[in-house]
Order: sequence, then C-alpha cells, then structure tokens
Amino acid sequence: MLIVMDAHATPEHVERVCAEIRDLGYAPHPMPGPTRTAIGVTGNEGAIVQTSRISALPGVLEVIRITKPYKLVSRDFKEADTVVSVGNVEIGGPGVVVIAGPCTVESREQLFSTARDVIAHGATVVRGGAYKPRTSPYSFHGLGEEALHYLAEVREQLGTPVITEVMDKATLPLVEQHADILQIGARNMQNYPLLKAVGRSHRPVLLKRGFAATVKDLLLAAEYVVAEGNKQVVLCERGIRTFDDHSRFTLDLGAIPVLKSMTHLPVIVDPSHASGYADRIIPMARAAIAAGADGLIVEVHPNPAFAVCDGEQSLVPERFAQMMQQVERVAAAIDRPLVGRTPLVTGV
Amino acid sequence: MLIVMDAHATPEHVERVCAEIRDLGYAPHPMPGPTRTAIGVTGNEGAIVQTSRISALPGVLEVIRITKPYKLVSRDFKEADTVVSVGNVEIGGPGVVVIAGPCTVESREQLFSTARDVIAHGATVVRGGAYKPRTSPYSFHGLGEEALHYLAEVREQLGTPVITEVMDKATLPLVEQHADILQIGARNMQNYPLLKAVGRSHRPVLLKRGFAATVKDLLLAAEYVVAEGNKQVVLCERGIRTFDDHSRFTLDLGAIPVLKSMTHLPVIVDPSHASGYADRIIPMARAAIAAGADGLIVEVHPNPAFAVCDGEQSLVPERFAQMMQQVERVAAAIDRPLVGRTPLVTGV
Amino acid sequence: MLIVMDAHATPEHVERVCAEIRDLGYAPHPMPGPTRTAIGVTGNEGAIVQTSRISALPGVLEVIRITKPYKLVSRDFKEADTVVSVGNVEIGGPGVVVIAGPCTVESREQLFSTARDVIAHGATVVRGGAYKPRTSPYSFHGLGEEALHYLAEVREQLGTPVITEVMDKATLPLVEQHADILQIGARNMQNYPLLKAVGRSHRPVLLKRGFAATVKDLLLAAEYVVAEGNKQVVLCERGIRTFDDHSRFTLDLGAIPVLKSMTHLPVIVDPSHASGYADRIIPMARAAIAAGADGLIVEVHPNPAFAVCDGEQSLVPERFAQMMQQVERVAAAIDRPLVGRTPLVTGV
Amino acid sequence: MLIVMDAHATPEHVERVCAEIRDLGYAPHPMPGPTRTAIGVTGNEGAIVQTSRISALPGVLEVIRITKPYKLVSRDFKEADTVVSVGNVEIGGPGVVVIAGPCTVESREQLFSTARDVIAHGATVVRGGAYKPRTSPYSFHGLGEEALHYLAEVREQLGTPVITEVMDKATLPLVEQHADILQIGARNMQNYPLLKAVGRSHRPVLLKRGFAATVKDLLLAAEYVVAEGNKQVVLCERGIRTFDDHSRFTLDLGAIPVLKSMTHLPVIVDPSHASGYADRIIPMARAAIAAGADGLIVEVHPNPAFAVCDGEQSLVPERFAQMMQQVERVAAAIDRPLVGRTPLVTGV
Repeated sequence: MLIVMDAHATPEHVERVCAEIRDLGYAPHPMPGPTRTAIGVTGNEGAIVQTSRISALPGVLEVIRITKPYKLVSRDFKEADTVVSVGNVEIGGPGVVVIAGPCTVESREQLFSTARDVIAHGATVVRGGAYKPRTSPYSFHGLGEEALHYLAEVREQLGTPVITEVMDKATLPLVEQHADILQIGARNMQNYPLLKAVGRSHRPVLLKRGFAATVKDLLLAAEYVVAEGNKQVVLCERGIRTFDDHSRFTLDLGAIPVLKSMTHLPVIVDPSHASGYADRIIPMARAAIAAGADGLIVEVHPNPAFAVCDGEQSLVPERFAQMMQQVERVAAAIDRPLVGRTPLVTGV
Repeated sequence: MLIVMDAHATPEHVERVCAEIRDLGYAPHPMPGPTRTAIGVTGNEGAIVQTSRISALPGVLEVIRITKPYKLVSRDFKEADTVVSVGNVEIGGPGVVVIAGPCTVESREQLFSTARDVIAHGATVVRGGAYKPRTSPYSFHGLGEEALHYLAEVREQLGTPVITEVMDKATLPLVEQHADILQIGARNMQNYPLLKAVGRSHRPVLLKRGFAATVKDLLLAAEYVVAEGNKQVVLCERGIRTFDDHSRFTLDLGAIPVLKSMTHLPVIVDPSHASGYADRIIPMARAAIAAGADGLIVEVHPNPAFAVCDGEQSLVPERFAQMMQQVERVAAAIDRPLVGRTPLVTGV
Repeated sequence: MLIVMDAHATPEHVERVCAEIRDLGYAPHPMPGPTRTAIGVTGNEGAIVQTSRISALPGVLEVIRITKPYKLVSRDFKEADTVVSVGNVEIGGPGVVVIAGPCTVESREQLFSTARDVIAHGATVVRGGAYKPRTSPYSFHGLGEEALHYLAEVREQLGTPVITEVMDKATLPLVEQHADILQIGARNMQNYPLLKAVGRSHRPVLLKRGFAATVKDLLLAAEYVVAEGNKQVVLCERGIRTFDDHSRFTLDLGAIPVLKSMTHLPVIVDPSHASGYADRIIPMARAAIAAGADGLIVEVHPNPAFAVCDGEQSLVPERFAQMMQQVERVAAAIDRPLVGRTPLVTGV
Repeated sequence: MLIVMDAHATPEHVERVCAEIRDLGYAPHPMPGPTRTAIGVTGNEGAIVQTSRISALPGVLEVIRITKPYKLVSRDFKEADTVVSVGNVEIGGPGVVVIAGPCTVESREQLFSTARDVIAHGATVVRGGAYKPRTSPYSFHGLGEEALHYLAEVREQLGTPVITEVMDKATLPLVEQHADILQIGARNMQNYPLLKAVGRSHRPVLLKRGFAATVKDLLLAAEYVVAEGNKQVVLCERGIRTFDDHSRFTLDLGAIPVLKSMTHLPVIVDPSHASGYADRIIPMARAAIAAGADGLIVEVHPNPAFAVCDGEQSLVPERFAQMMQQVERVAAAIDRPLVGRTPLVTGV
C-alpha cells in the first residue's frame, strides 16, 4: 500500500499517518519528495486493511493498494496451469476443447440430433440449457428437470460429458446430479451465495464473465468458488458491454493473454453470444483460439430459424463443421491439437 | 416490427418473407423504395415473435423490433404515478424521501446511534446492511440475522420503516419478517429466481440498477417483480460503469427524466456508491433531486474511518445534516417538500 | 513513482532497479515486504521519466505513476478559482452564467430573433455555429464567414458577447476577429495543433470534453492551451459515450465536483447534446447547477422542427424561459445568483 | 424511415404526419396495429430528411432511420473489395500485409536499423512517426520534417513504401511529398477539415478508428475522404475505450467481420496500442489475422527501454521475428499468404 500526501501536508500530518499505520500493525516508510511526500506501507499483506482509517486523516491525498485482492486463483500462488478434467476430457491442457450444443434443450429429439452432429464434427462436451435466465419474464425459461434427464441420457448413450447452467441454490442438487460441468451465467457472476454453493460442489464449474465485469472482478468471483474448496474452475470470456452496438457484446479477446498471465485457471471463449449472428461466429472462434484460449463454447441448432431462443446466433450443423475445420487449422498453427481429434499433420 | 430487405432482394424474396409473416399470424405491409424494400408487420403485439424465422430468410438485411418488451411497468399501461407506501411514508408522491443509515450494521449501538442521527436530520426510512454482497470472499459479509433483529428494534423503538438487502431466496422469509422494504442489489438485478421470489412478497421492493444495465434492462427486471403480483417497486439509479474512473461509478442522472417518462414507478438515487468519496456526495444528492428523483438513499456512519465497509463513501452525521439542509432547499426550488419535514417557506 | 517487484524478484533484481533509478537522477527507496518488495522513487517530479527503462528490467511487476501529468491547470499549482472575463460577464465567479442560442446560424433573422429571446430571458452570452463539424459529409456544415458577421452584429447591436466554434487553424484568425469566446468542440478536444493555436490567442477558450475523454484527458487538453500562454479556459461537460443509448450521451455530472476539486478553471455544462430531446434538457440543466457547475450552454431555436441541425435537442424560446426560471431557483437554493439577473430573495 | 405513433395518437395525428411526409416529397405508408400505428416512409433516400419536422408533431413516439448514412464506402454501393496499391504492395488483396517500424523516428540510425530489421523479417511497409500527437504538452512531439527526410531515404535505399501520421493541413503538403501512405490518427478521426484535405490527396490514407468511435462513425469518417475523390482508404482497428483497464484499450476484433461485410475497404489492425505490453502483442496479432484482418501495423524498436515514446508497447526485433513466424502460420491456416513472403506449404 502506498499513501500519497497532498502538497500542503505538514510533517505532523505525515507523522500522524505513520502512527496510524504502526497502530494497524504495519511498517511505514516515508519518502519525502520535492513537491509531496509518499509513505510506503509493508507488513502482513494477507490482512484486510481498513484504508478508510488512513484516507480520512488530514493531509492524505490518495491511498493506492498494490496487493492483488485475489490469491488462490493467481499465478503468484500457483505457477502451473490448472487442468480441469471431466470424463476423459481435459480443459486447460495442451489441447483445445470445443463445447457445443443448443442454447436451450427444446426436446429429447432436438438435443440428441444436435449432440450427435456436434460430436461427429469434433465437439467433446455437449451443452444444453435446462434453466434459462431471460431478460424478459415473458420469454421461454427452459424445460427444467426434463431437460436435465435428456442431458444425462446424452452422456450415457453418446459417452460425452454435458454442461448446463445452474441458476440458483434450490436447483443445484438436481443439476449437480445430472450435469458434468456446472455453468454460472454472466448475470450470476456476482451472485455470491450461488458461487459459494458451487464452491462446495464436486463438479467442475464454468464461470462466465459478467458483461460489465473487469478481469479483476472475474478473478475475484473465481476466488469465491476456489476459496470454498472447488479448484476445478474454467473461466469464460463472452463479451462485454461497450458504447458500440455493431454486435450484441464486444468480445474482449485481449483479456485472454491477460488472464493467462494472471491466473493458472483455463480460459475459454463463447463467440456466439457476443457476435449475435452466425456469420460472425466463425472468424471470432478462429481469433479466440489464435489469441490463446483453451477452448470454445458454441451454440448449434439443427434449425435456427425455429429455435425458441437465440436462434440468430446459432450455427447450423454444416456451419459448425466448417468452423471446426477452420479452428483446427488455426489451433495447429500455434501447435495445439483439438482435444479428441487426431492432430493434423502440418508441413511447417 | 419492421423488416428491411437488402438492396439485391428480389420480388420472390419479399413475397417469401410476407408469406412467413402471414404464417406467423401477422399482417405484412410491403413498402417498395428506390433502393430497397421495407416490410411493416402488424398484429397481436403481445405475442413472442420468433424473429429468427424471418431474419434467416434470403434477402433480409435487418429485423427491427418496435414494441417495447415491458408492459406492466410502462406509462403506456398505467399513466398515473405509482406511490409506494411503507408505514406512513410515501415514495413516489409529491414529496422527496430520504433513506439513510450505515452501509453495514456493525452493532446494535452503531445502528441505533446512526438511526437516531439520521432521523433527527430528516431521514424517514433507515437503511442498514445485514447480508452484504462483497467483491472479495475475504471481506466482511454482514452480521446476518442478528442485524435483522436490530433493524426490527429500530422500527419498533424509533417508529421508522427499515430497509435491508435480500441476497437469496433462502434468507428471504427472514428478511421479509424484519424489514419493511426489500432491497435488491445491483449485482442481483438480473437474478431472476430472486426477482420472482420478491415478486410474490407482500413487502415493497427497492430495485437497484445493475452497473451495466440499460434503462430497458432495469424496466424488464422490474417487470419480473410486477408480473408476479408485487406492484410496490421503487427503482434506484446508483451509477454505471464507464471508461472513466474519476469516481467509482458514473452516476447517470440523465436516466431520471427518461425513466420518469417511460414508467409510472418511483425512481430514487444512491449518490454514495457512485461518488465514492464523502465530499462528492452532497453535490450529487442535490443534483439527483434537481433532476427529478423521488428520493435518495445515502450511507451515514458515526465514524467512517472505522467502518468495516465502504467507510470512504459514508457521510458523518454532521455532513449528513448539511446534505439534508441543501437537499431540502433544492427540493423546494422545484416545489417538492421533503417527506416528514415541515416545508420551507421560500420567497419565490 | 512506485515500482512493484514481482514475488520472485531477487535482491540483485532490486539492486539493479535501484541503480537504474539513481542513473536517471532520482532517489530509490526500497521497501521489502513479506511477499514482495516495492521501491519508492523521489526526485525532480517535473522531469519526464522514461518508465520503459525501468519496466523492462527483470523482476519488475508494475510501475505506478503518482505525479499528476498536468500542472498549470491544477489546484495544487493555483488554489484560487480562475474567473474568465468576457465583456462584462464573468465565468467562474459567484454567479451562474447561461450561454444560449441556435445550434447553427441559419440566417441573420433567425440568429437575431433567437438572440433577442434568450437575452430577454436572461442569457448573457449568445452562441451560434458558423462552422459545424458533422458526422456525415452530406450534412449542412454552416454558413461560415457569413455567420461570423451576423454574430459580430449581435454583439454590437445587442451588447452581448458571442461564442462560436473554431474548427481549424486556417479559420482561426477570422473567428478570433468576430467571436468573443472560441469554442473547441468535443471531436477536436485532442486536436493538438488547434489547441496550441488557440493557446496563443487573446480570446478565452471554451473547451468541450471529448465524448471518450477522461477527466484527466480533459485537463491535459486544457494544459495544452494554458501552456501556450492563454489562461482564460472554461471547461465544458457535454456527455460521454457509454453502453446505454437511452440518451445520445451520458451526461457525467459526477465530473463536476471532481473537476472543481482538481482544477481552478471554471466548469460549465451543455445539457442539450447529451439529452437529445427538449423535454429532458430542463431537468438536466437544473441538475447541472445543483451539482456545482458555473454555467450552462444551451441550444434554442425559434422553430426547432425546421432547424437545419439538431432540432430535436433545441428548446423553443418559451421552454427556454421556463428553464431559466427553474435554473434561477435552483441556483438560489445553493446561494448562487444568475449572472445578469437581479437575484431572487429567498426566505431561507 | 419509420415513424412510430404513440398509443394515444388519434387518426388526425396520423393524418397530419402523413401530410408532412408528403410535403417533404416522400410517400407515407400508414400501418395501423392493435396498440399503435406505424408509418413507413419511402422516396428519394439520398436526400437529407429533417426528421425534427416529424418528431415534433403531436402523437409521434419515435422516428427510426433505416437508410445507412454512408454510401460510397458501403458494400451496397460497390460489392468488390477495394485493393489499395502502394509501390508494389497491395492492401486488401488475398495477402496479409505487415507494416512495422518505430513509434517515433528518433534518429536516422534508429530508423534505418529498425527498418532493416523489420524488412528482413517480412514487413513490406515501414512506419515511423514524424509528428506525434501526445496527450501531454510536455511529451516529445517528434522530429518533424527531419524525420520525413529519413523516411524518404528509407524508401529510396531500402525500396519499401513508408507511412507516417499527418496531424494537420499545414504540414500535409510536406508529409504528402515524403510519405507513401498518410496516416490519420485516432484522435483526428473526426477532424473533418483534415479528412477533407487528405480526401483531395493522391496518396492512400490509413484511417485509424477513434477510441470512442462506433463502426458507423468510422465509415462516415471514411466517407468524408472518399467523397472528396480519394478512394484509396485503409481502415484500422486499434482498440476502444471500455470500463476495463486490463489493457490500454479494448481491441475490438469483432469489428473486423462486421466491417468486412459493411464496406469494401481494406481493414487492418494495430495490436500495439491496445495491448500496451509487448507480451500481449503477439497473441493479438495472431487473433487479428484469424479474425479476417487484411494486415497489421506494429511498433518495433531496437531498444524499447530507451524509446522516447511508447517503449512499453514496442517489440524488439527478435520478438517481431517470432510474431511474423506465428502470424504467417495463422494466415496460412485461413489460406492467406503474407504479402512479400513465399507462401508456406502446409499439409492440410
């Protein structure tokens, strides 16, 4: 922590701040400068400092925190990459993982048809919404438990892990029973009771970045989960809100290298929600992998025009197949195979 | 709804879109122009149109929705202002209401001391956090049920309604039992299970705008509550995230007249969280009232330097008293009294 | 300046950074902590430090600048408020100044009619665009020199100073000759050759905040002008770009108290461009004054429906008169008179 | 254009709007719906409609423009990709172009050393700042004309076209004389006199997106240049301002496929300014190409720690070489060669 005194602070002001710092159990290091004095603070960085006790003192201009507020999820704490294992799929390892399926499970048939298609084209985890958070109370909110049963059937019959969103503590036990990965949606990224609850689950968690969450907020949300004991957390960039509306959200791919340097957790990208339109998803899926993402989560629907939800941003299976071919080539160009595919032989 | 065809769309493309519109139970109105054709759509606007069925058709450039997605909260639906009554306090009536108290209930003594002060200076509802959503898992998360009891005591002994945040469905019955108004925090504005739960409560709801929520998102969140039967909803502007970090959040006072024209619900402003520093709260409190807000919710602490939470943005009681004097004068300048105060006599 | 070393930095890394700091002519103050070392830097803060020489050294995690990059415009440099005088009008003094007139000068008649109206209702400076920066090359770009002559006539015949925008160095001499205040538009806030040019003018400058400019950027732009010798600068908040589109821009009134504490320069607000619609301008004009602004600049048009530019955001003279009455009362509520009006007598 | 009437509009209101539309020379198409009436407008879309004449009429809720405000730069106007030729380099053709060099020309030696390095590693255009727009008036502003002479020497001796920024009309003739491409910086994207001036130049223009400019704003700025006759315009995404500060700017790669569908102009990406740190530039350079960009503009410095400007975001030549190898492989993965390099043979 660093305390910057204002230009008119007296030596008495400086001494009083130093006394307060000592009183809080820290060591002050005053550094007089030509126009103002700064005071460095060292000590037990794990403790919570009540900065308000210091910022309220006379002569204090600014209190600057240096210590990162998250610990367990940081690279400082654990240098090696975390690899999240689900079934025989590893997220965060050398390979790139593609999760795909319908936005919403509409029927057993629709889910199985889509799941078979995406698996055939190389997806290794199947997604499908059972409980859907919708901006309008009048929209379709998912089949609920019925959808969970269909997802469980997909895992049993097709041998692929499944992921679905959990919206509250009340339905968590049911979701936990049927799904292999628990998804926390963007709107729930700071729903702390829910984060704590999935932090006590034995299932891996996919944590989506809130659309107004900074990278630091995302890491703090992950810290909530990990602090409860669940270390199997995958982060997901899915677009943030900005002033431009050319797309539904602005996909922040610059966050990928930043997150990879700050945390040991795997990072994947959802290009569907940000792009909003199918014809922009493929370029953004390629870009996400080129930026260093560990995987993708993509919406696929056999007949998007009739999707009950987010049809405009769903790929038809044929387009998904094209996406997979292109993503595989881009991944190969940075020496990463697609998980579950025999790697391409490139002549480079 | 309006469908814009692209410049190269053929008459067959236009006819196919019209056929699809008729198939969906609506009436198409094609309007050929010199460079492109647009197609107006009329019919039962209450229904959910699967726009993806249309946007996927060949020749379609854009589908523009016109109907507002919220209904019950709109001025179109109900022209007269909603007045939310709690005890003998009316929010949304001619008077301006000030809600004040500590960010977090730290002890019985701290709450009572602050409550007595703010009531003495004109606050008519007392706030105090029992359950605190905190960005870091390592911060203090509130006294919980103990704080609820203290709040109930405040109401009984000091005769003032109390408001506190409810964070999840599990603790809702307890909060409902002790608090007069249920606060939904910014981070939970799109926590739909929670919105539905408070929508079935008999207690009024204070709904804070999420820091990346548009005005439309806020109205849709309120629609969730009202659609469940609870019409006693107060909206609260508390700052949004923008590129500038001169303050913790950018208080969007321009949203006040916009909301007042779009909805019949009362709108209040929280100047504490956005401003971040006590010396900016008073000007923003004045500005909020001048912009037409129906009230304020403000953090006050007897000794901010020792507050366990958000001390920097809390007013000491003396500063709160100054704020009240100034707010009262500004309110009088637009012919609104402070609720619970004998109105000033101004010579204008 | 503060240098934070990473957790794995060795004593040799720390020593090398200290040596580099000494080599740059500064004094290093290493502060070893339990998990990492920080190094404070003191010395001649006026110099430009090449932080890249330090941030590139091994073991360095972060370089944090503390010194503010602007000087002449800061309160640290000059504590007393700057009062900008133009004719007999003072901007930044105890009174609140209202500048009003048409967005664009369309004809001699339109300008004079509007000027007479706004002066009658209390405006003390007349605005009118001669050169208009327009987003589209196909929009009307102003009458140019002809408009300047009409503005000069207004000053001579009606006795009121006039303000108009200057768009480039080429037309500056002409604008300088006819206008009393030179306006720099939001899109030119970082047009440095233009800032330098008006910095050498003898005319006061009204500097509008760019719609993506931070408060710090605005102060640095003002520093450009003042550094050239022109100390007569008025800052103007006019709305920033955010994710919400409920209005054309988000008026950042929270910047007013922030600016007033950081700089001695006067700060006014343009509620017209941000609000976009006439019925939102009055509440925002009131709120701007309540937040502590030193004045307003407002668009008025005798017949907005026929305005060649920005008609939707112009007030008709009758609405402007209402605005003035309300603004005067709000100003009186914070003990500020309207410049050029006999102050109200309030009974408080 | 579409006019939406409010729910309480009478048939007389509708008729009056229709009369006004006819008066403006357009054809109204009223479409009565169950809750409100909409009125389509068709006619000569090239004309400027004074929407304020309509929005001011009683009963009008909203006026929605449909026609795009830019024309010459749109794909509707010209379907085929524009290829900008400079020397023997083509930007916007099948190949990917890399422009590289120092942020600022510091000396003849520094420029030549960097230019030789980047050419050796595959850059085909050399960049170097002669006139530098700097946020602070106290920063180094470039060598000016001296730098232009060095750049011209580079072209003559090394046979590579050069690009440099032009900051105002006054220095345009000089820049035009020495540089092969005129760069318009982000802060000048809406400096209309400058856009018009380069629109009359015979040199190609690289137009950088302003950091708060929407994609539509960028296209309108390009329209200014093209409307003056200069069709050789290259667009450049370089990051926008958002609420997160993990990087200097948020690189908006989602804008690439959007721009490529909206305009025929080439689009390149500057990963240096957005990333801010050298170790994030390579992943973002790869991602930009994977997203479909036609090229890159990158800052390289032989000794970034001693750069007078933006050293932190400059690559050393060795890292640039790595970037080129990786970018070449990613480009090959989407079947695009690097311009000026013998294409890789990939075994796919």
